[in-house]
Amino acid sequence: MAILLNYQGHDSTPWAEAFADMLPTIPVHIYPHIPNPLDIQYAVVWHHPHGDLINYPNLKAILNMGAGTDHLDAETELPDVPIVRLLDPDVGNDMAQYAVYWAMHFHRRFEDYRRQASRAEWLSHEVPRTAEYRVSVMGLGLIGTQIARRLALSGFKAQGWSRTEHRIDGVDTFHGSSGLQQMLSATDVLVNCLPLNRQTRYLLNSETLGQLPTGSFVINVSRGAVIDDDALIALLNSGHIAGAALDAFVEEPLPADSAYWRTANVFVTPHISGSTYAKSAARPIADNIIRIEQGKQPFPIHIPPQTT
Amino acid sequence: MAILLNYQGHDSTPWAEAFADMLPTIPVHIYPHIPNPLDIQYAVVWHHPHGDLINYPNLKAILNMGAGTDHLDAETELPDVPIVRLLDPDVGNDMAQYAVYWAMHFHRRFEDYRRQASRAEWLSHEVPRTAEYRVSVMGLGLIGTQIARRLALSGFKAQGWSRTEHRIDGVDTFHGSSGLQQMLSATDVLVNCLPLNRQTRYLLNSETLGQLPTGSFVINVSRGAVIDDDALIALLNSGHIAGAALDAFVEEPLPADSAYWRTANVFVTPHISGSTYAKSAARPIADNIIRIEQGKQPFPIHIPPQTT
Repeated sequence: MAILLNYQGHDSTPWAEAFADMLPTIPVHIYPHIPNPLDIQYAVVWHHPHGDLINYPNLKAILNMGAGTDHLDAETELPDVPIVRLLDPDVGNDMAQYAVYWAMHFHRRFEDYRRQASRAEWLSHEVPRTAEYRVSVMGLGLIGTQIARRLALSGFKAQGWSRTEHRIDGVDTFHGSSGLQQMLSATDVLVNCLPLNRQTRYLLNSETLGQLPTGSFVINVSRGAVIDDDALIALLNSGHIAGAALDAFVEEPLPADSAYWRTANVFVTPHISGSTYAKSAARPIADNIIRIEQGKQPFPIHIPPQTT
Repeated sequence: MAILLNYQGHDSTPWAEAFADMLPTIPVHIYPHIPNPLDIQYAVVWHHPHGDLINYPNLKAILNMGAGTDHLDAETELPDVPIVRLLDPDVGNDMAQYAVYWAMHFHRRFEDYRRQASRAEWLSHEVPRTAEYRVSVMGLGLIGTQIARRLALSGFKAQGWSRTEHRIDGVDTFHGSSGLQQMLSATDVLVNCLPLNRQTRYLLNSETLGQLPTGSFVINVSRGAVIDDDALIALLNSGHIAGAALDAFVEEPLPADSAYWRTANVFVTPHISGSTYAKSAARPIADNIIRIEQGKQPFPIHIPPQTT
């Protein structure tokens, strides 16, 4: 028995060390150095090369090293084993705080204060009461729910939308397409937290983004392709949308010629809203491997989206 | 019976309107237009001109329009009536969020990401886990406690110091001068929340600030004179302190020739960390006036600091 480990594009070493501590009896092989594919029973992967996972006939489970599964969902052929998502509470916390940070940045006019400070100007601005400032989360999965709750705890008027009905303490929730329009038209800051799939691709386009009030803001912490970039850039240039904090893009790294780098009031961060730390994130993965070895169900199982 | 209202340097009108709603039977006179000083039973004031409050022989209480009482404490002669502080929960919330915003700004390296974005550079940085990032609050009064709690809820390792022992859920607390040194030497971001009085003036000087680790940050949300400006600027210039977010200054507006405007990694905001909104803040003041009229105690009574 062995673990295949591949934190594609990142350093796998701290993970290998963490698993050596937590699962001392199971060898860890870092891709592509796999002495014998027949040994591999667990694939702990992130953005693993497409088509490779069918090469391990004794695989028992795929353990995704993050919450987003769009890379796995895009596989044309996968072995018939459970896919387990990573829910690192540290990641959810950091993503929630990223949303709070940018909601505050926009609400409290920190950008204006920076500009003023550059010319030694002391001038305060009245802003809406925090309790009346509407910050709306699209997508109420485990992370979206954590973000919406944190926004409410931070004092904002928190709102949330999902395809089907969800109820969250302290958050005004909406659902379905009529609920989406209703929420967007009453939003000061929109936080995109939707997973990427056929239903959500370009869901934020010129029509839906145009339903936001003039002067509103957009934060994206999930996947780039949920947003139609041309539509968002046009609405930013026209001033309809007053600013955006973007952490996820269709192509990453964001190409140097992307208009986002050069659009005023757009803040680009390099996919850092929820950093995964081997030290905390290896624990739930190791626990899931132990669960499977004991004949129990791992958690949370990923149900691939309908591809029809 | 009448109310004297003076929100010195700000617009008193929304307050007068709020009191007209909440206390319709009590006339409100906006300073300096006081038809008859004998009518004044309640002085609702902020930074009221020194020496004026002894001119109202029928005064029953002074209701301060903010949490900070140093302006009143600096009076040489005050009528013998209770001084009631304003504790607007909205203000505490906004101040707590201001501290969270800047702690995140420093911890998550948002300044680096801004610089990188200006040259279209995609590069992520490892940062310490949020749960291991130590944010320490000096002063555990009602606002300092709210800030420390919020930092803990935001996922930080929250610490707090006060002269005498305090215990706060989820916060590591320290007290006395040995506790101060112990906390400062293990701090990534220091949040000053101390009231200004004889004991706290220049408490943050080259000795105490020098006990902070190299590369730490300072946030000031209370009063400027708790910090020795020359000491802080010298430590910023030497790189011992890596940055500061300052919302309070010895002289406000901060003079255009202040070194703070020109020091790298210093973020000046014009005393906006906790904005007072007439709409929410008039309520506890009106309630205190009603309490006194009913023969009850207002809350919270201010106990002036020892002036010896």
